[in-house]
Amino acid sequence: MATIGVIPGDGVGPEVIREAVAILEDLGAARGLGLDFAPVDLGSDRYLRTGEVLPESVQQELSRCDAILLGAIGDPRVPPGVLEKGLLLRLRFDFQQYINLRPVQLFPGVETPIKGKGPEQIDLVVVRENNEDLYVGAGGFTRKGTPEEVAIQTSINTRAGVERCLRYAFDLAGRRAQARVFPGLSDADRAAGKRGLVSLVAKTNVLTFAHDLWDRAFREVAADYPAIKTDYHHVDACCMRLVVSPERYDVIVTTNMFGDIITDLGAVLQGGMGVAASGNLNPERTYPSMFEPVHGSAPDIAGTGKANPIAAILSIGLLLDHLGSPDAAADVRSAVARVLADPGAPKTPDLGGTATTSEVGRAVREAIAAK
Amino acid sequence: MATIGVIPGDGVGPEVIREAVAILEDLGAARGLGLDFAPVDLGSDRYLRTGEVLPESVQQELSRCDAILLGAIGDPRVPPGVLEKGLLLRLRFDFQQYINLRPVQLFPGVETPIKGKGPEQIDLVVVRENNEDLYVGAGGFTRKGTPEEVAIQTSINTRAGVERCLRYAFDLAGRRAQARVFPGLSDADRAAGKRGLVSLVAKTNVLTFAHDLWDRAFREVAADYPAIKTDYHHVDACCMRLVVSPERYDVIVTTNMFGDIITDLGAVLQGGMGVAASGNLNPERTYPSMFEPVHGSAPDIAGTGKANPIAAILSIGLLLDHLGSPDAAADVRSAVARVLADPGAPKTPDLGGTATTSEVGRAVREAIAAK
Ligand SMILES: CC(C)[C@H](C(=O)O)[C@@H](O)C(=O)O
Ligand SMILES: CC(C)[C@H](C(=O)O)[C@@H](O)C(=O)O
Repeated sequence: MATIGVIPGDGVGPEVIREAVAILEDLGAARGLGLDFAPVDLGSDRYLRTGEVLPESVQQELSRCDAILLGAIGDPRVPPGVLEKGLLLRLRFDFQQYINLRPVQLFPGVETPIKGKGPEQIDLVVVRENNEDLYVGAGGFTRKGTPEEVAIQTSINTRAGVERCLRYAFDLAGRRAQARVFPGLSDADRAAGKRGLVSLVAKTNVLTFAHDLWDRAFREVAADYPAIKTDYHHVDACCMRLVVSPERYDVIVTTNMFGDIITDLGAVLQGGMGVAASGNLNPERTYPSMFEPVHGSAPDIAGTGKANPIAAILSIGLLLDHLGSPDAAADVRSAVARVLADPGAPKTPDLGGTATTSEVGRAVREAIAAK
Repeated sequence: MATIGVIPGDGVGPEVIREAVAILEDLGAARGLGLDFAPVDLGSDRYLRTGEVLPESVQQELSRCDAILLGAIGDPRVPPGVLEKGLLLRLRFDFQQYINLRPVQLFPGVETPIKGKGPEQIDLVVVRENNEDLYVGAGGFTRKGTPEEVAIQTSINTRAGVERCLRYAFDLAGRRAQARVFPGLSDADRAAGKRGLVSLVAKTNVLTFAHDLWDRAFREVAADYPAIKTDYHHVDACCMRLVVSPERYDVIVTTNMFGDIITDLGAVLQGGMGVAASGNLNPERTYPSMFEPVHGSAPDIAGTGKANPIAAILSIGLLLDHLGSPDAAADVRSAVARVLADPGAPKTPDLGGTATTSEVGRAVREAIAAK
């Protein structure tokens, strides 16, 4: 038995989550996974109605779940930071979801905006540290509102926090070197030696305190993984290389802030926000992990049926992996791969189609059933 | 009379600077600009030979120059940060070069790695704040080297420092709305209302101290420029949009760290590091400004003649603008544009050609003379 706390959230959140939950329900029933769902009302509507961002009782309820599925949070009527810090980052931090896992994989049939690159070149995973750095909320003002105002914002990095993230990345690189974690591609790149590489992305030449710690920890952890290759990229160079030669990356490990930036770039490479999944993981399972599409609430298309549910659906693939159902997870991904590869299958407008959110969701459900 | 301090620096630095200086010499003689050149020996070689990064006497000498032309700094034999902080950032800070100006323009004839975009879509300028933020070097360690180690790095932002940068960006947007600052394109986009837009790129929803200051200052400065439109982009979304729809940007203003990242991405859009120019500006001219190609020392191709001198040459365009010779600057840019647009003209390997650094430099010189 596993209980999934479901936070549909704002904008297109409820629309894509509906499809993801329908698939989980199907799979749960067909495989006897024993999933049940606890809908949780959080987000802009609740905040605007009641002033509550994350009431203690709701957090308690979420803490008893085995995993959380989140749609999207954000609304133009709410000031920046209120929901992000009070809800999204609070859950990531309080539940020690210290890994933000973001696979960047171009599925056959999806177009990338980059010339000359295809699924063989775009298949990497970003392991973003998710509990430290500039995201801790440390900082303040002096002389606020005057011409002499100073505002500071501090990145806090602990050896323990960095090291657990690095170890996760090296373990993941090891698993990827053993087996294709993601479907759709040949093993050619593994034979070509592409697998088993962890790239640290940081800015050691400028952030000489924070990233000196990262750099030292990286070297020391790497020594425990002699079979895994390593390299280092400054964040600016990495952004360049992601566009020009994404094939040089396998597992990227990076800080919270840089991870935020390069995973959006990664989402572009793989065909856009409509297909980018993520998991906020507490690998030890002391607390529930949280799975969410990388996209936001997209208020501009909310209610139009244009939202692509694939990102949310791929996020439940990560959820099933985390809950120990890798076969169900693989079935979700291979169904998505088949739908995306099939020119006749429904696609939302972001992928050049004219289908609605629920038509795409249904196609994936049918592909899973037809397997 | 103007004296240009010339720091060829490391790797390909001296190779590209040679071409840039030759052009400045030609132009100076032909137009009576009265330029003279003070070669300055700084960089890895000096450091490895003598341990000196930036001796006081050299800094004095540089401070008396009207502008500085820098090739590149960096060598694998020098630990990260030593030259970057001790030389490059030191000059940027000590000489109050608080604007890092980085035009992102795709010249006709240059290929961008992005599908479906051409010179009409890729023509923006990034105004990167250059004296504050995470680049100030504030931070430290506690319990260094132990499992309890904590490393912090602090972004410092002052109202005065941010405001002067914002004002520069708004003034620049005004000038771009009046006239085409860069050559090669029609005025169609201006007619289409694309000009006169300043986009703030930050992360207000997470960096709720530092970027709250930026956000408030942005709104207040914008009120002084009623003819200029404004919008706001989170840094992660901006990276996505730069690849998917670069045409939505005119002038981007951003922090030092985010500017570092998005200008490398910008360089990719415009055809790579080989063509990306920059100016570190002290707009008041209290101190010398410094002009440098965005690329680094590229030790892998140093000495092979493969380095593209266009980035360094476009940087002297920015230098000539700054020294008050806009006609000479325009001639440099239009000569570069003609060489790049001419399929028969020499190109370095990064642009798909087989010519050497000096062949390209000569072609630009001849194009200027032939004007
Ligand atoms: C909404 C925001 C706080 C969040 C982040 O910066 O982590 C988002 O951009 C993401 O990447 O999940
Ligand atoms: C070399 C490094 C310190 C520098 C920076 O980060 O500013 C470089 O990347 C740049 O963009 O000029």
